[in-house]
Amino acid sequence: MNKGRLEAFSDGVIAIIITIMVLELKVPTGPEAHDIGALHGLWPVFLSYALSYVYLGIYWNNHHHMLHATRQISGGVLWANLHLLFWLSLVPFVTGWMGESHFAPRPMALYGAVMLMAAVAYWILLNSILRTEGPDSVLARAVGRDKKGKLSPLLYVLAIGAAFVSPAISGALYATVALIWVIPDRRIERVLADGHATGSPKPQ
Amino acid sequence: MNKGRLEAFSDGVIAIIITIMVLELKVPTGPEAHDIGALHGLWPVFLSYALSYVYLGIYWNNHHHMLHATRQISGGVLWANLHLLFWLSLVPFVTGWMGESHFAPRPMALYGAVMLMAAVAYWILLNSILRTEGPDSVLARAVGRDKKGKLSPLLYVLAIGAAFVSPAISGALYATVALIWVIPDRRIERVLADGHATGSPKPQ
Amino acid sequence: MNKGRLEAFSDGVIAIIITIMVLELKVPTGPEAHDIGALHGLWPVFLSYALSYVYLGIYWNNHHHMLHATRQISGGVLWANLHLLFWLSLVPFVTGWMGESHFAPRPMALYGAVMLMAAVAYWILLNSILRTEGPDSVLARAVGRDKKGKLSPLLYVLAIGAAFVSPAISGALYATVALIWVIPDRRIERVLADGHATGSPKPQ
Amino acid sequence: MNKGRLEAFSDGVIAIIITIMVLELKVPTGPEAHDIGALHGLWPVFLSYALSYVYLGIYWNNHHHMLHATRQISGGVLWANLHLLFWLSLVPFVTGWMGESHFAPRPMALYGAVMLMAAVAYWILLNSILRTEGPDSVLARAVGRDKKGKLSPLLYVLAIGAAFVSPAISGALYATVALIWVIPDRRIERVLADGHATGSPKPQ
Repeated sequence: MNKGRLEAFSDGVIAIIITIMVLELKVPTGPEAHDIGALHGLWPVFLSYALSYVYLGIYWNNHHHMLHATRQISGGVLWANLHLLFWLSLVPFVTGWMGESHFAPRPMALYGAVMLMAAVAYWILLNSILRTEGPDSVLARAVGRDKKGKLSPLLYVLAIGAAFVSPAISGALYATVALIWVIPDRRIERVLADGHATGSPKPQ
Repeated sequence: MNKGRLEAFSDGVIAIIITIMVLELKVPTGPEAHDIGALHGLWPVFLSYALSYVYLGIYWNNHHHMLHATRQISGGVLWANLHLLFWLSLVPFVTGWMGESHFAPRPMALYGAVMLMAAVAYWILLNSILRTEGPDSVLARAVGRDKKGKLSPLLYVLAIGAAFVSPAISGALYATVALIWVIPDRRIERVLADGHATGSPKPQ
Repeated sequence: MNKGRLEAFSDGVIAIIITIMVLELKVPTGPEAHDIGALHGLWPVFLSYALSYVYLGIYWNNHHHMLHATRQISGGVLWANLHLLFWLSLVPFVTGWMGESHFAPRPMALYGAVMLMAAVAYWILLNSILRTEGPDSVLARAVGRDKKGKLSPLLYVLAIGAAFVSPAISGALYATVALIWVIPDRRIERVLADGHATGSPKPQ
Repeated sequence: MNKGRLEAFSDGVIAIIITIMVLELKVPTGPEAHDIGALHGLWPVFLSYALSYVYLGIYWNNHHHMLHATRQISGGVLWANLHLLFWLSLVPFVTGWMGESHFAPRPMALYGAVMLMAAVAYWILLNSILRTEGPDSVLARAVGRDKKGKLSPLLYVLAIGAAFVSPAISGALYATVALIWVIPDRRIERVLADGHATGSPKPQ
C-alpha cells in the first residue's frame, strides 16, 4: 500500500482548505471601498482565518509526523484519513460563519463542534494506524500517554458551552488549544532522535 | 511512461473537486444569520455534500488501488483518466444543484446521470489498463467478475427513473451504491496479499 | 535541479485551473431553478468548459511527455514554465466570458488570443529545454519538424479573425485544433519506443 | 524529517494561491458584457494579477532553490515555512483590493505591508534553515551577503510611504523589486555548479 500517495492527497486537501478559507476575506467594494475603514469590518474574519490557519498547520504538522513514523497503510486507514479530511473540509465554513457573525454564540459553538469532530477523527486515524503498527512501534512510543490529545477535546467541550455565556472565553479556549499544540510534534521528533541515538550512539 | 505523475495529477484534481464542493455551503449572511435557524436551509446542501464526499472518496480509493496494481501507462490510459476526471469535475455542480433545490426530481436525476457517466468512464479506464496489463495480471485477477462495477450503473439508472416518482427512493439508491462501494478495495488488497502469501509463505 | 518539483507544481496549477473553470457552471437559483429549463442557459458555458478541458488536458499530456524526455532543468526553463502557466491561468476567465456571452465575437476572439499566447509560451518552453538537451537528444528527435506546433498558431489567428465574421467558424477552428492535438504525444511515445526497440530488439 | 513533503505542501499552497488570484478577474455580465469595453475596467485587476503572479513565481523559484540546497528539516523550519505561506496566502486579497480600487493609496500601502511581512517570513525561514545547515553549508555560501534580501524590505517600506504621495511611484517600486528578483536563483545555481566543478572537474 502506497504511503506516499496518502500523504500527497492529504497535503493537497489541507493546502486547498487553507487557501479556500482566505476567500472569506472578501475584497471591499462600493463607494468607500478605498478607505482603510473598509477593512474595519474584516477584522473578525481575519482573526478567525488566522486561528484556523494555525489549527490546520497543526493538523498538517502532526499528520506529517504521524505518517513519517508509519510503515504500513491498510484500507481502514485510508477511510479513517478521509474521515478526518471531511471534518477539516468544514473548517472554512465554520471559520467564515464565526468571522461574519463577529463571534456570535452559535457560530462559536459550531466552530468548536467541528474542531471536536476533527479531533475525534484524528484519534480514530491514530488508533487505526497503531493497530497495524503494534504497541512496540516507534509511533506507539512517540505518542505515549497522549496528554494533549486527551486535553483538547475537553477544552473544545468547555469552549462550546462557554460560547453561550461569553464568546470571549470561548475564543480564549480555542486559542489555548492552538498554543498547546503549536509544538506538539517534538514528542515524535524526540523519540525518533532517541531511537537513532540508541541504535548508533554519536561520539559527543 | 510515468505512473507517479498520473497519480499525482488525479489526486490533485480529486482533492480540489472535494474541497470546491464545500463552497456550496455558503456562510449565512443577513439580519438572522447568527441564529442557528440560519443553518436550517443548509441541511440539504450539507447532506448532498456528505454523499458526494463519500462518492469521491470511493473513486479516490479505487483509483489508488487500481493504479497500485498497474505497471504500465499508455497514452490511451492518460486520456481515459482525463475522461473520468471530466465527469468527476461536474460532481460539485450537480451536488450543489441537488442541495439547493432541496432534492427536486430533475436535479436528482441529473446527479445520477453524471454518476452514471463517471462509472462508465471508470469502466473504460479500467479496461484500457487491463488491455496493457493482460488477462493474467494482478489487476485482472483482483477485478475478477467485477460484480459491483456492473451493479452500480444499474442502480444509477433505477435512481434516475425513481427521481421523477419519489426523490426519497432515488436518494436511498444513491446511498446504497455508496455503501456497496465503501469497502471495495478489499478485493484487490486480498489478491495482492494472497499473491505475496503464495510467493513467500510466512512462517506463521 | 529538481525536475520532479517542476512537474508537481505544473500539475498542481493545471489541476486547479481545470477545476476552477467548472465554477463558472453556476448552480441555478430562483423560482424556476428546479426546472430542467434552468439548465438551458448553461449550455454555452458547459460547451466552453468542455472545450477548455480538452485543451488543458492536451497541455498536461504534452507537458508530461516533454518533461519525461527531459534530463536537465535550468533556471530559464523554470521561468519559461511559469510563463506558460500564466497564460493557461487566464483560460478560466476567457472560457467563462465566451460561455456567458453565448459565443459573442469579442469573447471568442479573446479566447483565441489567450490560446495563441499559450501556444507561443509552450514553444518558448520547448526551445529553452531543447537548448540544454541538444539537437541529438531524445526530445529533439521526438519533436522533429513539429508540424502541429506550427499549424496551431496559424489556426488560432484564423479563428480570431473569423470571430468577427462568424463565431461558428471560429468555434469550429478551435475544435479542429483540439482534435489535431488529442493524440499528439504519440510522436514522443513512438521515438521513445523506437529507441528502446533499437537498444534491445524484441523477438517478435 | 521528510523534505519532499514540505516541498509538495508548499508547492500546493503556492499553486492554489496563484490560481485563486485569477478569480478576481470576474467575467463581465450585464447588457454590455459582450463589448470589449467591458474589459476596460479590468485592466487594473489584470495588472495587479500579473505583478503578484511574478512575485509568487519568484517566491516559488527561490523556495525551490533554497530547499534544493537544504539537507535537514527541523520542526522549527516547518513552522517558519507555514508562517511564510500565511503571508503569501493574503496576497490574493491585497492584490484584489489594489486592482478593484484602481491603485488607491491605502490598498497600495497594504499590498506593500503584506509583501514586507512575506519578505520577513522568508528571511526567518532562511535563517532557521541556515541554523541547522551551518555556516559552511552549500546554502550558506550560496546566499552570501544576501544583498537583494536586504534591499527588498527597504524598497517595500519606501513603496508603502510613497503610496500616500503617488501610487505611481509606489507601483514602480513594486515592479522594481520584482525585476531585481526575477533572476535571483542564479546565485545558488552558480555555487552549486562551482561546487560540482571543484569536487569533480570535468575533462572538457
